Amino acid sequence: MENWLTKQAQLEPQKIALLFEGKSWTFKQLRTAVVKFAGCLTTAGFQNERRIALIAANTAESYFALLALQQLGIEPVLLNFRLSLQELKSQLATADIHVILVDPKLSPRISGIAELQSRWTVSSLQQLAKLSPVTPTLVKEFAEEATASIMYTSGTTGAPHGVMQSYRNHFYSAVGSAFNLGLQAHDLWLCAVPLFHISGLSIVMRSLIYGMGVLLVRHFEPVQITKLLCTAPVTLMSVVPQMLVQLLAVFPVEGYQQDFRGFLLGGAPISHATLALCQERKLPVVQSYGMTETCSQIVALNFADAPDKIGSVGKPLFPVQLRITGKGTGEVQVKAPNVVKGYLNAPDDFKKKLTRDGWFRTGDLGVLDAAGFLFIKGRIDEMFISGGENIYPNEIEAVYAQFPAIQEIAVIGVADQRWGAVPCAFYVADTQIKQEQLRSYGRQKLAHYKVPRYFIRLAQLPRTASGKVQHYLLQQFFSQKRKLD
Amino acid sequence: MENWLTKQAQLEPQKIALLFEGKSWTFKQLRTAVVKFAGCLTTAGFQNERRIALIAANTAESYFALLALQQLGIEPVLLNFRLSLQELKSQLATADIHVILVDPKLSPRISGIAELQSRWTVSSLQQLAKLSPVTPTLVKEFAEEATASIMYTSGTTGAPHGVMQSYRNHFYSAVGSAFNLGLQAHDLWLCAVPLFHISGLSIVMRSLIYGMGVLLVRHFEPVQITKLLCTAPVTLMSVVPQMLVQLLAVFPVEGYQQDFRGFLLGGAPISHATLALCQERKLPVVQSYGMTETCSQIVALNFADAPDKIGSVGKPLFPVQLRITGKGTGEVQVKAPNVVKGYLNAPDDFKKKLTRDGWFRTGDLGVLDAAGFLFIKGRIDEMFISGGENIYPNEIEAVYAQFPAIQEIAVIGVADQRWGAVPCAFYVADTQIKQEQLRSYGRQKLAHYKVPRYFIRLAQLPRTASGKVQHYLLQQFFSQKRKLD
Repeated sequence: MENWLTKQAQLEPQKIALLFEGKSWTFKQLRTAVVKFAGCLTTAGFQNERRIALIAANTAESYFALLALQQLGIEPVLLNFRLSLQELKSQLATADIHVILVDPKLSPRISGIAELQSRWTVSSLQQLAKLSPVTPTLVKEFAEEATASIMYTSGTTGAPHGVMQSYRNHFYSAVGSAFNLGLQAHDLWLCAVPLFHISGLSIVMRSLIYGMGVLLVRHFEPVQITKLLCTAPVTLMSVVPQMLVQLLAVFPVEGYQQDFRGFLLGGAPISHATLALCQERKLPVVQSYGMTETCSQIVALNFADAPDKIGSVGKPLFPVQLRITGKGTGEVQVKAPNVVKGYLNAPDDFKKKLTRDGWFRTGDLGVLDAAGFLFIKGRIDEMFISGGENIYPNEIEAVYAQFPAIQEIAVIGVADQRWGAVPCAFYVADTQIKQEQLRSYGRQKLAHYKVPRYFIRLAQLPRTASGKVQHYLLQQFFSQKRKLD
Repeated sequence: MENWLTKQAQLEPQKIALLFEGKSWTFKQLRTAVVKFAGCLTTAGFQNERRIALIAANTAESYFALLALQQLGIEPVLLNFRLSLQELKSQLATADIHVILVDPKLSPRISGIAELQSRWTVSSLQQLAKLSPVTPTLVKEFAEEATASIMYTSGTTGAPHGVMQSYRNHFYSAVGSAFNLGLQAHDLWLCAVPLFHISGLSIVMRSLIYGMGVLLVRHFEPVQITKLLCTAPVTLMSVVPQMLVQLLAVFPVEGYQQDFRGFLLGGAPISHATLALCQERKLPVVQSYGMTETCSQIVALNFADAPDKIGSVGKPLFPVQLRITGKGTGEVQVKAPNVVKGYLNAPDDFKKKLTRDGWFRTGDLGVLDAAGFLFIKGRIDEMFISGGENIYPNEIEAVYAQFPAIQEIAVIGVADQRWGAVPCAFYVADTQIKQEQLRSYGRQKLAHYKVPRYFIRLAQLPRTASGKVQHYLLQQFFSQKRKLD
C-alpha cells in the first residue's frame, strides 16, 4: 500500500490530523512538518540508519520525529524515558542503535544521560529541527512486512524483548478496532497514554490508517483532561483503569460534550465498582485486552455488550482467532494478522512463545463463558497450587480491591510445608489494618483456601517503568522477611 | 482468518444479518440456515465440486445458497439470468461447471433451460432445501487467496471473462469502503442491485466482514423502495443512476427516515441535473468508480466532498494506488489488494490487463484535477480522433443528456474521408427532433468538432444483459445504414 501519510495528505488534506497544546495540523500540514523533519534528519546524516531510538514525551515534536523515521524507512525504537540507565543501555545495545533522538526538556529526567552521550550519538529534537532541511528520500510504499515500530516488553518476567511491529500488524489492529467501535468522519481520539507504549502508538497508526484526528496531551492530568472532554470534540479516549478512577473523581455534573462516544480501557482489569459508577454516569466504557506482541487490542467488548458483561474483556475481534488450552480456565492463545513477526535479535525467545501449530501463547490464563466472552484470570506464571487447588492471584486482588481502606494490593503464592503454597497479600493503606479483619472479610467473599495466609503492608508496590507490579521483588521481599522473622 | 460467517455468528449472534420480504435472520439464524443448506448440498452429493453455478434472483434462498457454497469451499459462479442461451453455455463451459443451482420461479425466464438440463445437472434451490441435510464439512478459515466468487464481465468488448475474486479482494474492498463512508453499529444496507453483480455481492461480503445487516429486495421498484427508505432503518443503499432518477420521481415531501445516510452511486456517470436535485432534497449521494476486476469501488467521493465535486468519481480509496498514463487525460491504472488475481482459465487475457510493473489497466480514460479528484472520460476503445483532436463520446453524451426531449443517447466515432472520424449520435426520444435543432444546441455547449455530424433516432439503445450500451452494434448499424443510403 501507498505510504499512509502521503495517502492521507492526498485523501483528507484539510482534515485535522493532530491537536497539541492549542496548535493544530491538518493532514497536509502534518505531512509538511514530518517531511521537513525527515529533511533535517537527512541533513544530520542519519538517513541510512537501519534503526534510531527515540526517547521522548508526548509532544508534537516527538510525533513528527516518530513519523519522520517511518517516512525515511528507518525503524523507530521507542524507549520509555522512565527506564533505569541499565535498562536503557541494555535495550540500546540489543537494538544495535547508533543514534538516539531525545527531547532536551526530558534530558534531566533520563537516567544517566551523560553516560548515554559518551557511548551513543544523542541528538536533540529541537537542535535537529533547527537544521536546514535537504529534500529527503521518502518511502513510496509501506511494505506489509516492514517494521513500523519497535518497543520493548516491560519485562515483569525475564529480560525485556524488542517487539517488531509491522505495517501489516498495525493495519489489522486498526481494522479490528474500527469494526468493533465503528468509525465516524469526525472521530477525534484523545491520546494521554505514552506514544512509546502500544496503547499510544496504536492511536497514531489508526490516525494514519483511518484519516482520523488525534488530540495529543503531554501527560495525564485529570482536571485538564476533563476540561478537554467537556470542550474539545473528542469522540474516543484510551485509558488504563487508574486514569478512569481519577477522571471519575472529578467528573462534572453536566457530563462531557455530546460527541464523546466512550473510553477504550486496557492495560489491566478494572473493579466492578468503577465500571458500575461509569454506567451510573452514562459513560460508555469498552474493556479490551491486548499486548505489545499483538499490536494493541485483540479482544474487546463493544458498546452494546459492555454494560451486561462487566468483568469480561470481550470477544476476539474480527481478524483474531482465539482458543483456550484444556477445559475451563487455560492459557489464552491467539492467531491473528496483528500478532507480530518476532523479537528483535531474539528469534528463539519468540519461537518459544508460539505453539507448534503457530498460535501465540499470551501467557495469560482465561476462560470463555457460554456466549464466547473472555474473562482473564491472571498470568500463568503467577498462578500457584495450594493443596491441589489452582489459585489465581487476580481473583483475590479483585476482592480485596473493594476493601475500603486498601488502596492497592498484590497477591503472590509463597512456599508452605503443608499446602505446597499459600497466598500472601501485599497492600498499601494509610494505616495498618488488623489481620483478623482482613481474613474475616476474605472468608465472606472467597473460598477458604484463597484467603491470604499473610498480609503485609508496604509504603508502595514495586512497579516497572510502565506501572506493572514486579512480583519477583515481592517474592524476594517475602523470603528475606521470613529469614529475619 | 476465521470463516467470516462463523465469526459473525460468534461476535454478533443476536444482530440482524438479513431482512427479506418481511422475514429476518440474525447472524446466528443466518448461519443455521446456511449450514442447513450446505448440509442439503452434501446430501445431494455436491460437496466435492470445485465450482457450482448459481442462476438466481435476489431472494433469501439464493443468499443462503451463495453463502453455503462458500462454507463448503466450493467456488460460486454467479450467472446473470438474463443472459442468452449461447452466453450461458459459453460461461458454464469455460468455468468447467457440472452443477447449476437455479431458482425454479426463475426457470421460465432462463433462456433454453431445457437445453441446459440436457447437458448439466440443474438442481432447484427449493428441491434441494427439502432434502434431509447431513452434517456438512465446513471450511474453518477463509484463506486470503481462496476464490470467494466468480462472475463474468459484461463483454461489451470481446468475450466475457470469469473474474476470480478472492477473500482478500473482498476484505480490502470492504475496508476501503468503511474507511470512506464510516461504519455504525446499526448500519443496514439496502440491496436492490443483483447479487450476481459485484455491486450486490459486495454488500453481502461487507455484511460478513463488518457484521452489518442487509435489507435484500427481489428487484428494484421505485415506489416499494421509497416505502422502505421511509419506514425501515436503512442507512445506505447502492444505486445506479437510472435507479436514482426513478427514486427522485417519487420522492416524498417528508423525506426518508432519519437514519438514512445516503446513496452509493456506481455503474455509470450521472447527470449534473440529477445530482443537483439530490442536493436540493438533501439526499447525500456518493459517486464511486469500480469494476468486477477490482471487486467493487476503488475510487469514491466522501460525504463531505460530494456536494462540491459533482462530476468527479472521487479519490482512490485507502488501499488503492492510482495513476494516469501520460499528461492530462490518459488511462486509469490501479494497484490495490482488491485487484483480482485473474480470469478463470484465461490467464493470458488477464496478463494483458496488467502493465509490466503489475498495475491493472482499467481501459478507462480519466483525468485528475489539482486536488486529486478523478474524472472519468470514457473507455479508451470508444475514444476516437477527428482532425487530430481526441474526442471522448462520454462528454458529448453528457451534454445531450440535458437536451429536454432526449431520453437516452450514445455517441460513437464513424469513419470520415476528410477528418478520419466524426461523431455520430444515436438517441431515444418520443418524437423525431430536427437535426438543425440538435446541432445548434451542441454548438452552444461544445467545440465545433465535437458536435455530432449524424443524429439517428432509435426505438431503444442496444444493451448487454447488465445494461451497458453495445457500441459495436451501433457501429454495425451505421455501416449498414450507410450502404443502404
